[in-house]
Amino acid sequence: MITALGKPMPRCNLSVVLCLLLVSVTARAAEAPIALVIHGGAGVADRAQMTPEREASYRAGLTAAVDAGYAVLQRGGSSLDAVATAVRMMEDDPQFNAGRGAALNDDGDAELDAAIMDGNGPRAGAVAGVWHVRNPVDLARLVMDRSPHVLLVGAGAEEFALEQGVVLVPRSYFRTRARIAELAEEQQGAAEKGKAPAGNPKGTVGAVALDRAGNLAAATSTGGLANKHAGRVGDSPIIGAGTYANNQSCAVSGTGDGEYFMRQVVAYDICALVAYRHLTLEQAVTEVIHEKLRATGGTGGVIAVDPAGNIVMDFNTVGMFRAARDSRGRRDIAVYRDK
Amino acid sequence: MITALGKPMPRCNLSVVLCLLLVSVTARAAEAPIALVIHGGAGVADRAQMTPEREASYRAGLTAAVDAGYAVLQRGGSSLDAVATAVRMMEDDPQFNAGRGAALNDDGDAELDAAIMDGNGPRAGAVAGVWHVRNPVDLARLVMDRSPHVLLVGAGAEEFALEQGVVLVPRSYFRTRARIAELAEEQQGAAEKGKAPAGNPKGTVGAVALDRAGNLAAATSTGGLANKHAGRVGDSPIIGAGTYANNQSCAVSGTGDGEYFMRQVVAYDICALVAYRHLTLEQAVTEVIHEKLRATGGTGGVIAVDPAGNIVMDFNTVGMFRAARDSRGRRDIAVYRDK
Repeated sequence: MITALGKPMPRCNLSVVLCLLLVSVTARAAEAPIALVIHGGAGVADRAQMTPEREASYRAGLTAAVDAGYAVLQRGGSSLDAVATAVRMMEDDPQFNAGRGAALNDDGDAELDAAIMDGNGPRAGAVAGVWHVRNPVDLARLVMDRSPHVLLVGAGAEEFALEQGVVLVPRSYFRTRARIAELAEEQQGAAEKGKAPAGNPKGTVGAVALDRAGNLAAATSTGGLANKHAGRVGDSPIIGAGTYANNQSCAVSGTGDGEYFMRQVVAYDICALVAYRHLTLEQAVTEVIHEKLRATGGTGGVIAVDPAGNIVMDFNTVGMFRAARDSRGRRDIAVYRDK
Repeated sequence: MITALGKPMPRCNLSVVLCLLLVSVTARAAEAPIALVIHGGAGVADRAQMTPEREASYRAGLTAAVDAGYAVLQRGGSSLDAVATAVRMMEDDPQFNAGRGAALNDDGDAELDAAIMDGNGPRAGAVAGVWHVRNPVDLARLVMDRSPHVLLVGAGAEEFALEQGVVLVPRSYFRTRARIAELAEEQQGAAEKGKAPAGNPKGTVGAVALDRAGNLAAATSTGGLANKHAGRVGDSPIIGAGTYANNQSCAVSGTGDGEYFMRQVVAYDICALVAYRHLTLEQAVTEVIHEKLRATGGTGGVIAVDPAGNIVMDFNTVGMFRAARDSRGRRDIAVYRDK
C-alpha cells in the first residue's frame, strides 16, 4: 500500500510501530495473565427446588465477590489479597455457609474453619473450630503472616486472635434465621431417622487466583456441616485436602464431602498429578473429581488455576455456585452445569 | 544317607516332605510378608549430650513397642491393630512426646494430637487439641470406626470420647517432672531471646505396618512443640501431612518440623511419588526428606512401608528413635545414623 503522500518510509515506520505495539501488548498479556475464580459451595439445590429469586441472589453475591477480588488483581495487587477479599465478602454474605450465616453445629453454634495458602514459598495459615471470629480467612492470614504455625484451633486460635488485636464478635452474630431453621430441620430429621444426619455438606466458599507477579494463592472458609458434631473439622482448613497452592503446579479450593476430600488429599492430589504425571489442570481435576472421588462415593467440586492462567471449575454434583474472571476477558457467573 | 533301618523309601519320602515344607514356608513368607516400623521422634540429642543410660532407656522403650506391635501381626492381627498397639505403648511411656510425658504448651498443659489411617479403603480418624485423653491414638481409631468424620478437635473431641465411653483423665496425668522442667527452660529461653521459642519439635511417636492380608496402616501421636501456642496443631493428626496410608502405594508416619510437613504434605507426597512417578519407596523418601524438605529448611524424618514389605526409615536430623521388624527376620533398634 502507498499513502496519499506517496512517501513509503513514514508509512513503513508507522506499521512497524503499530506492529511492535501489538506484539508487545500480546506478549505482555501472554507474559502476565491474571485470573480469579471463586466458589460458593457445591451444595446447590435441584433446579426444581431453586426459586428464581434465590438463584438471582446467589448470582449477585458471586458477582460482587468475584469483581471485588478481581479488582485487587487488576490494580496489581497480590493473589493472596485477591482471594482474601473475595472470601471475606462471601463470609460477610449470610447466604453462603461461611462467616455470618454459617451452618450451625449440634450445639446450635457456628464453628468456623478457614485456610489460606500462598503459592510463593509456599506458605500457609489456617484456623479451625473458632466461634467468635467474624472473618476466619483473615485470622488464617494472621496465622500465616504473624505466627510460626500453620494451624491453630479452638480457644487457642481465639487467644491468638486477641493477641493480634482482632475484635471478637458474639456467637449470635453468626446465627441467621435460615440457619436456625435448617438446624431444627436437620435435628428433627436425624431424630426421626434415628441416625447421624447427612447435613448440608457443600456450602463452603473459596477462591483461587493468579496475580501479575505469577504468584498463585488459594483460600477456603466454611461453617461445615449443619448439625455437625461439635469439634468436627472438615477439609477446608486442611492444607492439601480442601486448600492448596504452589506456584510450581496449581492452586485449588474444594467444596463437598469434607471427609472424602481429607482421606483423598484432593487439593494436593490435583497439583501432584499436574507436577508428577504432567497432566493438564483440566485432566487432573477430571481424574480426581470424576474418577477417584466418585469411585469412593465422594461428592463435591473444586476451582483451580495454574501458573499459565488456565481456569478449571468442575464438580460431580447438580451444580456449584461459581464465578471466574481473567485477563483474557472472561467473566462467568454460573450455578448449574449449563451455566 | 541311609537310615539305621536301611530302608531308603521312608528316608526319601521324609526328604520330599521336608523339602515341600521348606518350599511352602518360603513361598508363604514370600507371598505374605509382614512388617512393623516405629519411631519415637527425630528430636534426638547430639551424641555428646546423650547419656548411655538415657539411650538404653529409649532403646528399651522402642524394643517393647516394636515387639508388642509385631506380635499382633505374627498372630495374624491387622496392621491397624499393630500400629495402634505400638503407638499406645509409646503414649504410655513417659520418655516419648505423646500421651503421658507429652511436651507442654504455653499454658503448661499437654495438648495432644493423633491420627490413624487404614490403607484399606482408605479410612482415617484423627483428634487434635485434646487435654484429657490417655491414649489419643485410640480416640482417633474411634473417630474412624464410629463416626462419619475424620477429624475432631478440642472440647468436641472430648465430648465424643465421653459418648463412646472413654474414661477421661485429669490434665495432671500427662505432666511429668521432666516436661515441667523443659517448659520452664523453653519459657526462660524465649523470654531472654525475646522471640517465639523453637521448642522441641521432634518428639512425636508413630508406626506403620503391613499385615498378612496385605493391608497397610499408619498411626502418629504427639504432644507437639514444647511451649507451643495453645491451640497449635502440627502435622501428626493431619491426613497427608504427618500420617498417610494407602494399600496402593505406601504407609508413612512423620516426625519433625510439623509446619514444614504440613505445607509440603509430606506423607502423601511420598506416596504420590511412588504412585505417579513410580519411584521406589526409598527413592521417594530420599527425594522428599533430603531434597524437598531440606530445600525449605525443614528437618525431620519418616518411617514408611510399602505393599511388598519394603521398609524405609530416614531423616535429615542427627538421629531418629526407630525400630523395625519383619518376616524376613529383620529386628533393628536404632537411634543415630550408624545404629
